[in-house]
Amino acid sequence: MKSLSTPAEVRSLARSGELSDPTPGLAAGYVQANLVVLPKSLAFDFLLFCQRNPKPCPVLDVTDVGNPEPRLVAPGADLRTDLPRYRVFQQGELIEETTDIRQFWRDDLVAFLIGCSFTFEAAMVKAGLPVRHLEEGNNVPMYRTTIPCVSAGCFAGPLVVSMRPLSPEQAIRAVQLTTPYTKAHGAPVHLGDPAAIGINQLDTPDFGDAVTLRNGEIPVFWACGVTPQAAIGQSRAELAITHAPGHMFITDLKEDAIL
Amino acid sequence: MKSLSTPAEVRSLARSGELSDPTPGLAAGYVQANLVVLPKSLAFDFLLFCQRNPKPCPVLDVTDVGNPEPRLVAPGADLRTDLPRYRVFQQGELIEETTDIRQFWRDDLVAFLIGCSFTFEAAMVKAGLPVRHLEEGNNVPMYRTTIPCVSAGCFAGPLVVSMRPLSPEQAIRAVQLTTPYTKAHGAPVHLGDPAAIGINQLDTPDFGDAVTLRNGEIPVFWACGVTPQAAIGQSRAELAITHAPGHMFITDLKEDAIL
Repeated sequence: MKSLSTPAEVRSLARSGELSDPTPGLAAGYVQANLVVLPKSLAFDFLLFCQRNPKPCPVLDVTDVGNPEPRLVAPGADLRTDLPRYRVFQQGELIEETTDIRQFWRDDLVAFLIGCSFTFEAAMVKAGLPVRHLEEGNNVPMYRTTIPCVSAGCFAGPLVVSMRPLSPEQAIRAVQLTTPYTKAHGAPVHLGDPAAIGINQLDTPDFGDAVTLRNGEIPVFWACGVTPQAAIGQSRAELAITHAPGHMFITDLKEDAIL
Repeated sequence: MKSLSTPAEVRSLARSGELSDPTPGLAAGYVQANLVVLPKSLAFDFLLFCQRNPKPCPVLDVTDVGNPEPRLVAPGADLRTDLPRYRVFQQGELIEETTDIRQFWRDDLVAFLIGCSFTFEAAMVKAGLPVRHLEEGNNVPMYRTTIPCVSAGCFAGPLVVSMRPLSPEQAIRAVQLTTPYTKAHGAPVHLGDPAAIGINQLDTPDFGDAVTLRNGEIPVFWACGVTPQAAIGQSRAELAITHAPGHMFITDLKEDAIL
């Protein structure tokens, strides 16, 4: 694959179908985003769900009704084609995973772009912190927890988290480093014992790939933008479209622009 | 008037009609809030306006449709009676200023509580910074600027700011001190020359009272929660109810809880 150093390159390859892989490490230094598409009739409840759960759901941009262009964060891009992989839900059930959602698009749809922890991984690497799934060429491991979100209208569900193994000293540095990235989930929500937040098996993540936890390392957990997908399942929304976990939209924003 | 040291005391006196004055300095150390009430049909556009303009419109709480209780920030309070003074708008025109909005309440109304800069004034006083309108027993001066907000649906309009005079050294300290209060407008948006943001006369504020600018002081401007009132005027919203400028709702949140 060509070097994918700019957001426009990544989006263009996703659009042409050449890229259908997860996006960690691509266009390093640019803000990556989770996608949630819903009918206008559910848009207020969902925006309120985001407002009430800002750690997992920091809103970066909301499109005008029926318009798939994210005008504020990537003018000219098309959210129907420019992500590597999507999930389509009807009545809360996953009905299809696809690389193009033009056939599902409607005039009453609103798209929400939500910050993603991949955004601060370039800063972690620069600070000398390990990012294990990048080292191992994998998608980040993600887990459903037993921590409930604050509900809003029809949206309710558990917090979903991503996990990165770090030594205790590295975990302290990672807390400091990620705290200012409030639009990319910010500081971790938990570290250490996975069972304390309802995760029983670290080696079988609910989404993404398992990674190696080395001797002396503890798992460090960040709120994750897959959280809305859990809420969509419970909501039984007539139609909802999201990115496939780890297959993000890459915006034109530099990571420093959201600090 | 009795000492008004707790949020419940202030709200109770507003409810009984004994308090209809501005709220700076009341229940010091607690989070104060701007109020915007709109029909559900406009709620998504307005929440999006807030999301796109987080400096003037940091959302603290949004009530369930038809329910005047702000469950998250002041359980048991009633937003129809617990503010000292309200403004009622029809088709964007101010039709009434009143101390009780029960007669205007409807089952389809949604109330938004938005952070207020009165929240950090206790911290300014504690740090030895002057808060001139408190010293002079007045409401804070507020001004329309020529800085446009980012529009959302029917909501668009200019940024409204509040002003506090400070020496340059105090202004620097105030920037540091208020930066973490992102849910109460955070750092100033401007300091020095008022004309640079379209303010021609400091001594005739658009809302609130004029205050003394002493020799060697510069005006320091913070984004203000009256901004939505300007947008409501332009939106021609069928019905909108707000607090009267300076007459805020006092929540049960301690100011440190929003840091």
